[in-house]
Amino acid sequence: MNPPGRLTGYVTTQVIVLNGGSSSGKTGIARCLQAILPQPWISISVDDLVDALPPSLMGPSSGIAFGPQGEVAVGYGFREIEAAWMTGVAAMVRAGARIIVDDVFLGGAASQERVRAHLAGLDVLWTGVRCDPEIAVGREIARGDRVSGMAASQAEVVHKGVVYDIEVDTSHAESMDCARAIAASVV
Amino acid sequence: MNPPGRLTGYVTTQVIVLNGGSSSGKTGIARCLQAILPQPWISISVDDLVDALPPSLMGPSSGIAFGPQGEVAVGYGFREIEAAWMTGVAAMVRAGARIIVDDVFLGGAASQERVRAHLAGLDVLWTGVRCDPEIAVGREIARGDRVSGMAASQAEVVHKGVVYDIEVDTSHAESMDCARAIAASVV
Amino acid sequence: MNPPGRLTGYVTTQVIVLNGGSSSGKTGIARCLQAILPQPWISISVDDLVDALPPSLMGPSSGIAFGPQGEVAVGYGFREIEAAWMTGVAAMVRAGARIIVDDVFLGGAASQERVRAHLAGLDVLWTGVRCDPEIAVGREIARGDRVSGMAASQAEVVHKGVVYDIEVDTSHAESMDCARAIAASVV
Amino acid sequence: MNPPGRLTGYVTTQVIVLNGGSSSGKTGIARCLQAILPQPWISISVDDLVDALPPSLMGPSSGIAFGPQGEVAVGYGFREIEAAWMTGVAAMVRAGARIIVDDVFLGGAASQERVRAHLAGLDVLWTGVRCDPEIAVGREIARGDRVSGMAASQAEVVHKGVVYDIEVDTSHAESMDCARAIAASVV
Repeated sequence: MNPPGRLTGYVTTQVIVLNGGSSSGKTGIARCLQAILPQPWISISVDDLVDALPPSLMGPSSGIAFGPQGEVAVGYGFREIEAAWMTGVAAMVRAGARIIVDDVFLGGAASQERVRAHLAGLDVLWTGVRCDPEIAVGREIARGDRVSGMAASQAEVVHKGVVYDIEVDTSHAESMDCARAIAASVV
Repeated sequence: MNPPGRLTGYVTTQVIVLNGGSSSGKTGIARCLQAILPQPWISISVDDLVDALPPSLMGPSSGIAFGPQGEVAVGYGFREIEAAWMTGVAAMVRAGARIIVDDVFLGGAASQERVRAHLAGLDVLWTGVRCDPEIAVGREIARGDRVSGMAASQAEVVHKGVVYDIEVDTSHAESMDCARAIAASVV
Repeated sequence: MNPPGRLTGYVTTQVIVLNGGSSSGKTGIARCLQAILPQPWISISVDDLVDALPPSLMGPSSGIAFGPQGEVAVGYGFREIEAAWMTGVAAMVRAGARIIVDDVFLGGAASQERVRAHLAGLDVLWTGVRCDPEIAVGREIARGDRVSGMAASQAEVVHKGVVYDIEVDTSHAESMDCARAIAASVV
Repeated sequence: MNPPGRLTGYVTTQVIVLNGGSSSGKTGIARCLQAILPQPWISISVDDLVDALPPSLMGPSSGIAFGPQGEVAVGYGFREIEAAWMTGVAAMVRAGARIIVDDVFLGGAASQERVRAHLAGLDVLWTGVRCDPEIAVGREIARGDRVSGMAASQAEVVHKGVVYDIEVDTSHAESMDCARAIAASVV
């Protein structure tokens, strides 16, 4: 994130990237951010992209595949579509939309670099959403709509080498409290 | 849609716009298209945008509002976001994604002009999805998850003055059959 | 179903059993029946029971399991719970509720006998919901939320040896039209 | 709940009633209970009943109505159906099913008496699920799928005069931890 006002005297955050493992609480934080931020922010998730995929990209050959233990395998076909999707998200921002992007950096720092390249020139608030793995596993069971095991396998790896402007930990804090902390960094 | 091969000798459809009223069957056709088209197409709906909105844009002041009789009122705030969203969709296509856009041209020809401007230079297959209003009303009741009245109020008006490359009518045809007809026009 | 008025001079249908394969259109018909029948009917599906199961009954050992080709395997543990559930549904009816039960007779006539035993003494309208297998497969693709293959594997087998008061075929009829035909048999 | 073994030397809990306001965390606790209890428990919610209602019982005249501030109004028609439904739930238990019932005692002690009458003779674990109102309101915003205001208006009133075997408070405890505490009282 650029320092506020560096160039123009009037810089505002344009993108909030929320990165965290499955069941870490990203979506709840995004909804709270939408409720408390004074300007309209739209909320987009990499899960939306997965839902938009054709059957041919759901599976192990070249798309995205979810294994029985919660592991996620991503092939070349998915990477291509994901790159186009992120280009589109950046274009929405350049056209004036403020966007909260809810993502899972399965490749850690390498994932961040890919996203950073797409968002070049935009004012991004890089936000880490951490959650104690054991707690995330319990929440995965409580929500009941995710492949069991994703919370455990993603909790640590998605943060590996990633650089943040702000980090929140949902282990012992409510979504709304995390959202307030993040909102205070939106300039 | 440009004639195939006009300029390059190798032109392919890049965007399929499905326009039709609520409960006309657009989403089912989109899924069938994804299943039968040989290349990966991603499917995006204006409903996804509505789901992504903040609470401040859900309501009659400047966002999008759904009345008790199924009427939809759209304000300036929503129009701004929608324009940015469509810019992003176009950018995804220019970056290489093939996209099926499921839309509802509440303003008829004027809506088409707005979308056409965003998709300038892209090879678009404009597709009308018609459904007898009485049948759409029955399907709205059968699906049970839409505000009652949207099907009736939108069935005709969304096609007013809109120009299509192909039209399908789901009144007496299955989603898959409509998808096959559309797929035959994808070049 | 007993003939109307046979014993009491005032008999009314208490249960409508809709039996049909996956994606044959049972749920849509149930919603239309609820909308057009003059008295309040509540709508219950065996899918609701499946959603209510614990993880220990989701799987091949003793519960219910869904195979990759859409096959459904049912074990002893599930059968026990299902019997208790059907006992409860019958008790709701005896306590005065009118109920539409949306079921899938995987065992054909044997399934009907099990359900018939639970509903003994009640006035049941046995309703077959048929759909051409090829059409059901297309609708399964169009709805996009069912394990692929269930429609094809269930379309015929669920009707084997089952005796109905009325049958509808959704292949070329709307849910609402099927509901009207069924409603005319509710006495 | 009867003391274990009082009459038969072998008494086990048959019903776990979870009572709490909207967004207090009942459903998540129910899923965790299903995951950790050694025997199969099925999970049923009064929300399932609401989903099963016909349109004629959704509304202020005699059914159930949800006001713009999250208030819930319940009429005679809904009460009749609810009584039949609870009769059915009790019959399922008498037929051998173990059931977790997720309910909202809008009438406090009077609601408990109604439920107690239906479950007469069964071994019930009455469980209060409390949550600080301010926290519940934040979670209602974070989940994004409930009428805003229900959490606040129900948080206290549903516990008024209700007698419990065990109470949990989700304000500062995970669903899984609450489930473990409840499970320790299942005998």
